[in-house]
Amino acid sequence: MSGKRTDHVVVVGGGVVGLSVAWRAAAAGNRVSLVDPAPASGASYVAGGMLAPLAEAWPGEEELLELGSTSLNRWPDFADELSRASGLPSGLRTEGTLMFGVDGADREELDTVAGYLAGLGRSVTRLTGRELRRREPSLGPAVRGGLEVPGDLAVDNRLALTALRAAAEAAGVEFIAERAEAVRPGAVELAESTVECDVAVISAGAHSGSLHPALADRIRPVKGEILRLRRRATALPPPTRTVRGPVRGRPCYLVPRDDGGVVLGATQHEVGFDTEVTVGGVRDLLADAETVMPGIAEYALVEATAGLRPSTTDNLPVIGWLEPGVLAATGHHRGGFLLTPVTVDAVLALLRGEEPEPLIKATDPSRLGGQQ
Amino acid sequence: MSGKRTDHVVVVGGGVVGLSVAWRAAAAGNRVSLVDPAPASGASYVAGGMLAPLAEAWPGEEELLELGSTSLNRWPDFADELSRASGLPSGLRTEGTLMFGVDGADREELDTVAGYLAGLGRSVTRLTGRELRRREPSLGPAVRGGLEVPGDLAVDNRLALTALRAAAEAAGVEFIAERAEAVRPGAVELAESTVECDVAVISAGAHSGSLHPALADRIRPVKGEILRLRRRATALPPPTRTVRGPVRGRPCYLVPRDDGGVVLGATQHEVGFDTEVTVGGVRDLLADAETVMPGIAEYALVEATAGLRPSTTDNLPVIGWLEPGVLAATGHHRGGFLLTPVTVDAVLALLRGEEPEPLIKATDPSRLGGQQ
Repeated sequence: MSGKRTDHVVVVGGGVVGLSVAWRAAAAGNRVSLVDPAPASGASYVAGGMLAPLAEAWPGEEELLELGSTSLNRWPDFADELSRASGLPSGLRTEGTLMFGVDGADREELDTVAGYLAGLGRSVTRLTGRELRRREPSLGPAVRGGLEVPGDLAVDNRLALTALRAAAEAAGVEFIAERAEAVRPGAVELAESTVECDVAVISAGAHSGSLHPALADRIRPVKGEILRLRRRATALPPPTRTVRGPVRGRPCYLVPRDDGGVVLGATQHEVGFDTEVTVGGVRDLLADAETVMPGIAEYALVEATAGLRPSTTDNLPVIGWLEPGVLAATGHHRGGFLLTPVTVDAVLALLRGEEPEPLIKATDPSRLGGQQ
Repeated sequence: MSGKRTDHVVVVGGGVVGLSVAWRAAAAGNRVSLVDPAPASGASYVAGGMLAPLAEAWPGEEELLELGSTSLNRWPDFADELSRASGLPSGLRTEGTLMFGVDGADREELDTVAGYLAGLGRSVTRLTGRELRRREPSLGPAVRGGLEVPGDLAVDNRLALTALRAAAEAAGVEFIAERAEAVRPGAVELAESTVECDVAVISAGAHSGSLHPALADRIRPVKGEILRLRRRATALPPPTRTVRGPVRGRPCYLVPRDDGGVVLGATQHEVGFDTEVTVGGVRDLLADAETVMPGIAEYALVEATAGLRPSTTDNLPVIGWLEPGVLAATGHHRGGFLLTPVTVDAVLALLRGEEPEPLIKATDPSRLGGQQ
């Protein structure tokens, strides 16, 4: 870096990470442009919005747990700032999470998570099926045991995106509704023009790999199908908090929304850049949801969509300089919403020419071995 | 009737029946207006488009079979005229129908249909599961036996509606994009105005009952949920003709479209004026379809919609004078597309002051016992 104060930052990608970086970079005094043909329409729009570092913890992924826990701790302040800056609700819900299991192998999986977290000094409470149903009466008899994880929260992804866009606009971010084709030091190439800049930030989700050689083949799309349901007048109420867990080995979650909606997800398929919803995916989601919550059959099916998680081989995001003038803040896999506060803090430190906090080291682009 | 030549006909309802009546009445020299806030958007838009009097025949419903068979015979000419008048494809497909059964009770149901039709001199061919799969290799091993019904056809409902609308416009039909609130001799009442006419024709589907006292409580909505699928590159091809039958007692059909699409239907629920698609409905449709055609899991789910069949207690439509100046052509239940040619012929005869053909007698409004 030149050492001078960064003035023109171009963010490529208008998902939760890109919008947040753009908003906060502009609020910090930079001139900011955001390049996206359709902001807030990709994986962030499809997402369930779980902020769940504990429920998603797994032995061997200590760095991801640390990043997620740190970021989750910052979410309440981030949400407050977002509401203030946008004048809109942030969508944060603080009811916590219940995990469940159905068959013996599912419960062993929960035991692994509980034991792992206990070993790290993070306690979760084991619950019987009856205790689960006492907390959430909509859960069915197939649910045999689980965990209470009060610290894991959720955010209404669409409310948050609307607020982020408003906050970015209020901070003076310029929106350029075009698709970026390549990023190099000092320039973001569009189809028929070039946007010059001091720093470019790549936050283009699953498409990031096509924008810079250091990311080529390092960010792969993992398709997720998701259903949006709504309680009908004749139906039992939804759970009051996120309920999630394996259903005979297949991950399933139900995330309630304030408006009576429920987000049901999610499949995981590595099938390239494919966002069609399949019959088999919907069949599996509905079957698992009904196992967990029999009353869901009476809900309305409002929407079926698919998004592409931007995934890396170690499930960690990619945050840091790819070369002078080109920053990456991408590869957030299933954790875009969760990891946004810590990602934004790191990007702002890097834009100021500072070192980000130590836990960001694990996300350094050089670990991926791409062309630097 | 006054005996004078009808000059201004107002058709209430822009589904397949209303659009067809409007088109043909205008082509016959009448001045025609069609009142519908959103033509071609109701049950006709949701429909599967099967033209299947034989597959839907059932002992005791001889008059419906007669009406359906007569109307089906007129479909090829009707489709030709429609294409000529609109310059657009009619959507008619002539590949015929296969019926199937899964469990023993399903096959007994097919035996009843086959025996009934044989007794009426209409022969259908019984097929083993193997013979079914030889004709349609996409059918799965759960399909154990069935019938070949080459005479039952299908029409792409959306192509047909587009063509009907174009034909009506070309014939000079005036479209009034408002909701009718009541129909009386000489007038159709809208929210804030009145359309005067010589004859009003009520073809408002499930909403017909609210328009005239003779239809009150005589036309009830029967909800049908339907899914539209599309073959993905990785998926096996769909059947080449309509395949339908009971799957462990639940009716199921797969109707192929020319563009690689497949229409999958349909649930039947009497739940009032409710067009929400439910989780339970979708779950049942997908499960049954996969039983019939295992490869369908790889198809894309493109659309899930529900429509309201306008149903009567005897499953026959309602065609005839409700009082001087007010005609009914409604209550077509699952047979709107099938019964359109014969309905249009009857309405045009009535508009000319003539008696319609004898088989129309069975559809006389007076049989319903409404207020005349």
